[in-house]
Amino acid sequence: MQPDLLHRADAAHALQHFRTLSPLVHCMTNDVVQTFTANVLLALGASPAMVIDEQEAAQFSAIADALLINVGTLTTARARAMRAAIDSANTAGKPWTLDPVAVGALTFRSDFCKELLALRPAAIRGNASEILALAGMSAIGGRGVDTTDHAQAALPAAQALARQTQAVVAVTGEVDYVTDGVRTLAVTGGDPLMTRVVGTGCALSAVVAASCALPGDRLTSVAAACSVMAQAGSRAVAASTGPGSFIPAFLDALYALNGEDVA
Amino acid sequence: MQPDLLHRADAAHALQHFRTLSPLVHCMTNDVVQTFTANVLLALGASPAMVIDEQEAAQFSAIADALLINVGTLTTARARAMRAAIDSANTAGKPWTLDPVAVGALTFRSDFCKELLALRPAAIRGNASEILALAGMSAIGGRGVDTTDHAQAALPAAQALARQTQAVVAVTGEVDYVTDGVRTLAVTGGDPLMTRVVGTGCALSAVVAASCALPGDRLTSVAAACSVMAQAGSRAVAASTGPGSFIPAFLDALYALNGEDVA
Amino acid sequence: MQPDLLHRADAAHALQHFRTLSPLVHCMTNDVVQTFTANVLLALGASPAMVIDEQEAAQFSAIADALLINVGTLTTARARAMRAAIDSANTAGKPWTLDPVAVGALTFRSDFCKELLALRPAAIRGNASEILALAGMSAIGGRGVDTTDHAQAALPAAQALARQTQAVVAVTGEVDYVTDGVRTLAVTGGDPLMTRVVGTGCALSAVVAASCALPGDRLTSVAAACSVMAQAGSRAVAASTGPGSFIPAFLDALYALNGEDVA
Repeated sequence: MQPDLLHRADAAHALQHFRTLSPLVHCMTNDVVQTFTANVLLALGASPAMVIDEQEAAQFSAIADALLINVGTLTTARARAMRAAIDSANTAGKPWTLDPVAVGALTFRSDFCKELLALRPAAIRGNASEILALAGMSAIGGRGVDTTDHAQAALPAAQALARQTQAVVAVTGEVDYVTDGVRTLAVTGGDPLMTRVVGTGCALSAVVAASCALPGDRLTSVAAACSVMAQAGSRAVAASTGPGSFIPAFLDALYALNGEDVA
Repeated sequence: MQPDLLHRADAAHALQHFRTLSPLVHCMTNDVVQTFTANVLLALGASPAMVIDEQEAAQFSAIADALLINVGTLTTARARAMRAAIDSANTAGKPWTLDPVAVGALTFRSDFCKELLALRPAAIRGNASEILALAGMSAIGGRGVDTTDHAQAALPAAQALARQTQAVVAVTGEVDYVTDGVRTLAVTGGDPLMTRVVGTGCALSAVVAASCALPGDRLTSVAAACSVMAQAGSRAVAASTGPGSFIPAFLDALYALNGEDVA
Repeated sequence: MQPDLLHRADAAHALQHFRTLSPLVHCMTNDVVQTFTANVLLALGASPAMVIDEQEAAQFSAIADALLINVGTLTTARARAMRAAIDSANTAGKPWTLDPVAVGALTFRSDFCKELLALRPAAIRGNASEILALAGMSAIGGRGVDTTDHAQAALPAAQALARQTQAVVAVTGEVDYVTDGVRTLAVTGGDPLMTRVVGTGCALSAVVAASCALPGDRLTSVAAACSVMAQAGSRAVAASTGPGSFIPAFLDALYALNGEDVA
């Protein structure tokens, strides 16, 4: 299965939908990226809310339009609250997205993420090492949050994972691949400088989660999320002098980006 | 009761007091806004400290000049530590401020915030939906952290809440209203772009908390806090090209703002 | 014992080593500085990872090159996870660094930090009040996270602490002093504006932790970490107009800094 390039018109269309619908996104994410994740969603016109108590998480994921589960700083209490939120989202028919940060390297989160695969995620977004580990195809786990593999090498794993879970799987890197196990879209853009800023991948997962609340073809919506982030990243790199100035430039670019830019 | 406009000379005077006294502020706030809250307080010359363990929180709130309670990412353990800190602050005669984030929409925090109303807060700062919910005057709760009501529509609720609790209540929005149930001050300024940056409201609550440690009329001090933040916000919007560049510009503006600017 | 000035050539050499080795740093740090700490390490070419669950923390500190323990927002659960991570790091022969935030003022963390001194830290980094408190030499504790003493006044305490623990001790302030109890290096640079940005000290501790993974003389490596941060700070202050614009400028400066700049 050769991947197709995402059509720019499709990305533009998805971005317009995103801004119009302004999805309310319940983010259960790690301690390191909370602020950046919220600011990325706000810049794109979505409404983020971080609710973490077990009872409240279950209550809120039924109200929100989409749920993000990111296991970067997992604890036993958070795992419990995440399960409750996922159950509630599933009951309410709200899509949820998994970001399996550093899965493979650490036992507790690896077991937890594999358990979650049975709970019908709408989407999964990870780097190559994470997707390989989640699909059970990595020889050894990575050392941490950085990938030691290329996205293309993880494409068969992503496709297998998509078929197994019925989720749209995005494996991101220099090129991003988004697959439902049958069709695969490739997204280019972005810049290596983005790997020198914490949370760009985690924030992308939040935008993927929000995009799963859009009407229309989910594969296209998720690929459009990758494309919007990559294009904003390229613009921000051009406007900045390092990873520090990249951050405000990236949020400004996300805020300014419109359908015409993307198309 | 028609609100009066805050006198700019009063705001200038309060800002000078704030910088001179440099209040030590014990912030028990949510996970998403910790860094921004600390940086806002530091830019204004205050000393923030985030202490969350139950025993330490009780110990520290007696040492600090003021305490902030923000329920954005409430958990059972944090609720316990917050109660201990409030008790200790009350015993030591230190003022504490409540930010009832997303109250109304979620049961656990709604019950908790209503319980706290009996514990003599010095100030309460929320958006219109939150103040309406806290006063028991909203037909339905909001969907999350964003308000679905205008500040002016919540003014009667704010006034009732102030009379009930003896706290100064600030309901903030396009115009901010600050009331003690008898007098009401209106504060203008700010910019809608501030709603596209996470934590501007939460950080305002921290500045309100710090301002409750100032000598003099508390209603004026709290309104001055709203005014300083709004004026810094207006300046920062003028100096920025989106929500990303707003953040450093806002902190710079807070740092540079002096009595003459405000007057 | 008069301190010697760190040789700039030594700092340049250490920075080159740092970038080449790209240490994987397990950061167990406080809630307020997670993002900034990660971005500082990333800007310098290191790989940060925040892992906090007790079981995972023990697993990860054996994989990582270095461990940071920062008690700024200590809880009972985190203390337990930190002990597990330290034990595992010690077993695996990985160096760990202590940042005793606000020790002295608060009982729980003071007792915890004193307990940790017996667990062979590779380095300790604190301000003057913290180092005095940790060495048992302060008349009274500080009021919070800000120091009320000068670094030079804490030098005897730092030297005594280094001899007691076998750790390299850095007491930082207007001038930083780095000592192993026998030799002492002084590092100049930096700017008071850095105290108006939350996390500059905490992020320095993370860079110190990472530097303990470098080959060669540890005293020099730790002093070089202080020097690199101070020099980037001086550059960033020159390029900024307040504490807000300092933050991106500082990360950019860290990213750009090379051996020639430092030498």
